[in-house]
Amino acid sequence: MYRSHNCGELRIKHVGQEVKLSGWIHKIRDKGSLIWIDLRDRYGITQIIIDTNESSKNLIEQVKKVGREYVVSVTGSVKERESKNPNIGTGDVEITLTEIEILNKSKVPPFTLDENTDGGDELRMKFRYLDIRRNSIKNNLIFRNSVTLEIRKYLNELGFIDVETPYLIKSTPEGARDFVVPSRINKGEFYALPQSPQTFKQLLMVGGIDKYCQVVKCFRDEDLRSDRQPEFTQIDCEMSFVNQNDVLLVFENLIKNIFKKCIGVELDDFPKISYWEAIENYGSDKPDTRFDMKIFDCTKSSKGKGFKILDDSEYVCGITVNSAEPLSRKQIDQYTDWVKQPQIGAKGLIWIKHNNDGSFKSSIDKFYNHDDLLKIVGNFSEDSTTFLISGNKMKSLTQLGQLRLKIADDLKLIDPKKFCPLWVNDFPLFDWDEDDKKYHSIHHPFTSPKDKNIHDIKEPSNVVADAYDLVINGNEIGGGSIRIHNRDLQNQIFSILGFSEKEAKEQFGFLMNAFEYGAPPHGGIALGLDRLVAVMNGDNSIRDYIAFPKNNSGRDVMIDSPSPIDNDQLDELNIKLK
Amino acid sequence: MYRSHNCGELRIKHVGQEVKLSGWIHKIRDKGSLIWIDLRDRYGITQIIIDTNESSKNLIEQVKKVGREYVVSVTGSVKERESKNPNIGTGDVEITLTEIEILNKSKVPPFTLDENTDGGDELRMKFRYLDIRRNSIKNNLIFRNSVTLEIRKYLNELGFIDVETPYLIKSTPEGARDFVVPSRINKGEFYALPQSPQTFKQLLMVGGIDKYCQVVKCFRDEDLRSDRQPEFTQIDCEMSFVNQNDVLLVFENLIKNIFKKCIGVELDDFPKISYWEAIENYGSDKPDTRFDMKIFDCTKSSKGKGFKILDDSEYVCGITVNSAEPLSRKQIDQYTDWVKQPQIGAKGLIWIKHNNDGSFKSSIDKFYNHDDLLKIVGNFSEDSTTFLISGNKMKSLTQLGQLRLKIADDLKLIDPKKFCPLWVNDFPLFDWDEDDKKYHSIHHPFTSPKDKNIHDIKEPSNVVADAYDLVINGNEIGGGSIRIHNRDLQNQIFSILGFSEKEAKEQFGFLMNAFEYGAPPHGGIALGLDRLVAVMNGDNSIRDYIAFPKNNSGRDVMIDSPSPIDNDQLDELNIKLK
Repeated sequence: MYRSHNCGELRIKHVGQEVKLSGWIHKIRDKGSLIWIDLRDRYGITQIIIDTNESSKNLIEQVKKVGREYVVSVTGSVKERESKNPNIGTGDVEITLTEIEILNKSKVPPFTLDENTDGGDELRMKFRYLDIRRNSIKNNLIFRNSVTLEIRKYLNELGFIDVETPYLIKSTPEGARDFVVPSRINKGEFYALPQSPQTFKQLLMVGGIDKYCQVVKCFRDEDLRSDRQPEFTQIDCEMSFVNQNDVLLVFENLIKNIFKKCIGVELDDFPKISYWEAIENYGSDKPDTRFDMKIFDCTKSSKGKGFKILDDSEYVCGITVNSAEPLSRKQIDQYTDWVKQPQIGAKGLIWIKHNNDGSFKSSIDKFYNHDDLLKIVGNFSEDSTTFLISGNKMKSLTQLGQLRLKIADDLKLIDPKKFCPLWVNDFPLFDWDEDDKKYHSIHHPFTSPKDKNIHDIKEPSNVVADAYDLVINGNEIGGGSIRIHNRDLQNQIFSILGFSEKEAKEQFGFLMNAFEYGAPPHGGIALGLDRLVAVMNGDNSIRDYIAFPKNNSGRDVMIDSPSPIDNDQLDELNIKLK
Repeated sequence: MYRSHNCGELRIKHVGQEVKLSGWIHKIRDKGSLIWIDLRDRYGITQIIIDTNESSKNLIEQVKKVGREYVVSVTGSVKERESKNPNIGTGDVEITLTEIEILNKSKVPPFTLDENTDGGDELRMKFRYLDIRRNSIKNNLIFRNSVTLEIRKYLNELGFIDVETPYLIKSTPEGARDFVVPSRINKGEFYALPQSPQTFKQLLMVGGIDKYCQVVKCFRDEDLRSDRQPEFTQIDCEMSFVNQNDVLLVFENLIKNIFKKCIGVELDDFPKISYWEAIENYGSDKPDTRFDMKIFDCTKSSKGKGFKILDDSEYVCGITVNSAEPLSRKQIDQYTDWVKQPQIGAKGLIWIKHNNDGSFKSSIDKFYNHDDLLKIVGNFSEDSTTFLISGNKMKSLTQLGQLRLKIADDLKLIDPKKFCPLWVNDFPLFDWDEDDKKYHSIHHPFTSPKDKNIHDIKEPSNVVADAYDLVINGNEIGGGSIRIHNRDLQNQIFSILGFSEKEAKEQFGFLMNAFEYGAPPHGGIALGLDRLVAVMNGDNSIRDYIAFPKNNSGRDVMIDSPSPIDNDQLDELNIKLK
């Protein structure tokens, strides 16, 4: 037996008991006559005390041998501490050591295992097994576990069946790039790893499973941006005989339930806003509504004063910043530079300061008098600054939306303890590709249009998808749609997308076949678990919620993967390197 | 709204209510004046009745349009049936149809969707989404879900943390063949799919996670034998600061818990038998103990009577068959042929019949008299038949063990409702490879020997592993071991296995590195979920417990995968076909 208790368990009621603990040496303080050891395991830290005047020479020798991160088991009796530590659960007691056994030695770790570690990202990733010993990472993994379990329990109680879909599936030319797996038995052929179980969950609906859920790894071979992982985890769900509201209700309640159970937060009902409402008010289809500063349209109010830039613009929009301290000229110039950087891409930034004496100062004073400016900014409070961006509607809104986030971040307008979930819906179904001169599906070709009489619609760009995204604090947490289950409607969609019936069959054959045998109306959603747990914990980075993440080049630096493989192995797989 | 109730829900208390159901047309019986429809969904079947004399022409026309597996929603009022069907939950009621909407048409399915389907294996696999509509497959998936959820809940309550380990890992030359994934970003390099999360769960123990569990897909690119899948699901667990008994206790209780909760079976404590006890008594390391018919050693009692075959044999062993009907001479001859087939490989089979008058008749009467035979068979009951096999000890025992199973199956000696779980432990640590002239690990090189003073042992073949298998009804359900956490012991094991320290570092570098930073004593187990749920349900085949299984060539015939991929895709991955 290695332990009678764990290192987070002992309390004042255990005083007088003989106990055995096992764990890691977190700290040693040697004051000559007294030596203290902080013994750590997953559950906490317990203080061990050695009075060198009252201990055997042998015991003291053993104690002197141990170092940081050594694994030991200790035996001793629990006593009440003289100076208690109210910060830890075990802070009322300590253990008078009578026996210590070194279970394993340790080299000195390459970084400290405290909260504020001195280890850089790369080093922490290389020694991830040590990084996991740190409270923050360990607690993230425990938190993730509790969220996942609550989700499973909740969905199960609603009758969802967790069905495991295959990982070795078929590569499709649509969508993002697949990871592929050469088949040894079927030479020259490849499996693909799933980007999502989309087609399988639809097949399960055809199979009558009615309600499906799965917490499942998905894979995308994309060029990695920061905070993207080639493998990520989805909470994947699908339901039969439902419309959009049925789906939203289930998953809104799921999210409310895990917020309450896992972080004690009661969420209000989620607002629903349309895609265009989101774009026009926040310049984003995943708006952060923890702060206001909505975008307003001043295309009309800004025209006709002889300022060519605005007069010629398709769209002019603005935001007004109300800050405790009025923005300085230097800050305004910095924001002007910021929006002009290539990642944002604005041509310029118009500013209008509304001073506390009611007067205006602006970068367009030459063309606009006091009343003109008042017309543009509306009746906003004094001591505010309004920024305008003009040009193409979508671009201007997006650029201003990014500036909105930047300013909120700089001026600390966001309460980090606040959660603002919302549904964005009424997305366009199609996207016109000017290069290809054809329509693309914004979601995927199986997404149902809201108006099922699609053949009456002259302009495909106007067709609204029966699709929805869940957004929390400006993060897209998940999305889904009602799917097409009707073969005729599916054919119309394919024809708008420029597929011949033959091409559609070739690319989506097995799903199309399945749809000929009584597919029920169905729809679903997929939530990104990595992002969800990070956002719930108030974090932006998903990496510290993944036990063994990969870096931005898709490498696991701890195990040094990917790596070359033997020629024999390549031979067997019937492939060679180019 | 597609439904007010599901098709398994309505009872006598609903009589008089207006309801709406949606589902599939399971059966239609048209008797002219009355038409009955069995409407089916996941939850059950509800009878719909149409009195053509009292229904509108329009409604009857609609009803006449629907066929088998059409998806419809129906509205009507619940009434008490005249002739009740006690076999189904909804058998007391039926719905008088007032409205029917065809939600989707269906082609005629290629096989019937009843329990005794007329579909062959290949056809059912190709149309798996229809096969899943059949009760047996559907219920298997629901059963699997309930077992998995109970396992998760149970382990979570014991403090196990579900940690997701990566799927894109590193290929290792040891063990079975890996599936590999070419990396596009890291050209010429490959990920491997995990055969098990073995190293990662050990790293989690080094990371102080203490108790880890995961229900996880694993991958092995083996030549597929019947009932093996290239991807399969493991319940994977690891614990720190434990010895063998600690691990067995947790998982014995887990198994007892799921048997009780999921199938209402109370299991007794699991016997523990050693590897050699299993081999000597049952000719197998996964003995089926639902019936007795133990193997006995008659090497000594059978020698010295001038019968050269037995006199020269290393080992002679027997089983005695007590059957209601004495075995006929024809049966005996059939068994003799059976053991001589190449898959079994026995040279012959000696038989001794003990007649009910106390006399013997045997195939070795020439050499053995009544007393000699009595000495061999012992005091067994009359009307029994004893079979002997001789030769190499391990081979003879294995051959007789297979005959034991064959006879039990033929004579129906096995109660299919019985469950006999047991632990097999004390496996040898090493296996001498006569071809390579070196020792191999029977489990893996990180399995701990039971006697930690391994350097005192002269003969590695005698070293006993601290490893254990869980066997239920002759199926290996899982296995595990206490791992080595001590660097010196690990080095000794590597040296017995013929690794230089450098080679060991090369092959197991990152785990060896981790072990230098305070690895705790740890051990674990992995259970095969596919097999476990099949065995719990009294089934031998795992395939019907997997939603979308692959066939014996590793193909998914439904989606037709694996399949060729584009040259562009190959180019991007920097590989080409040979």
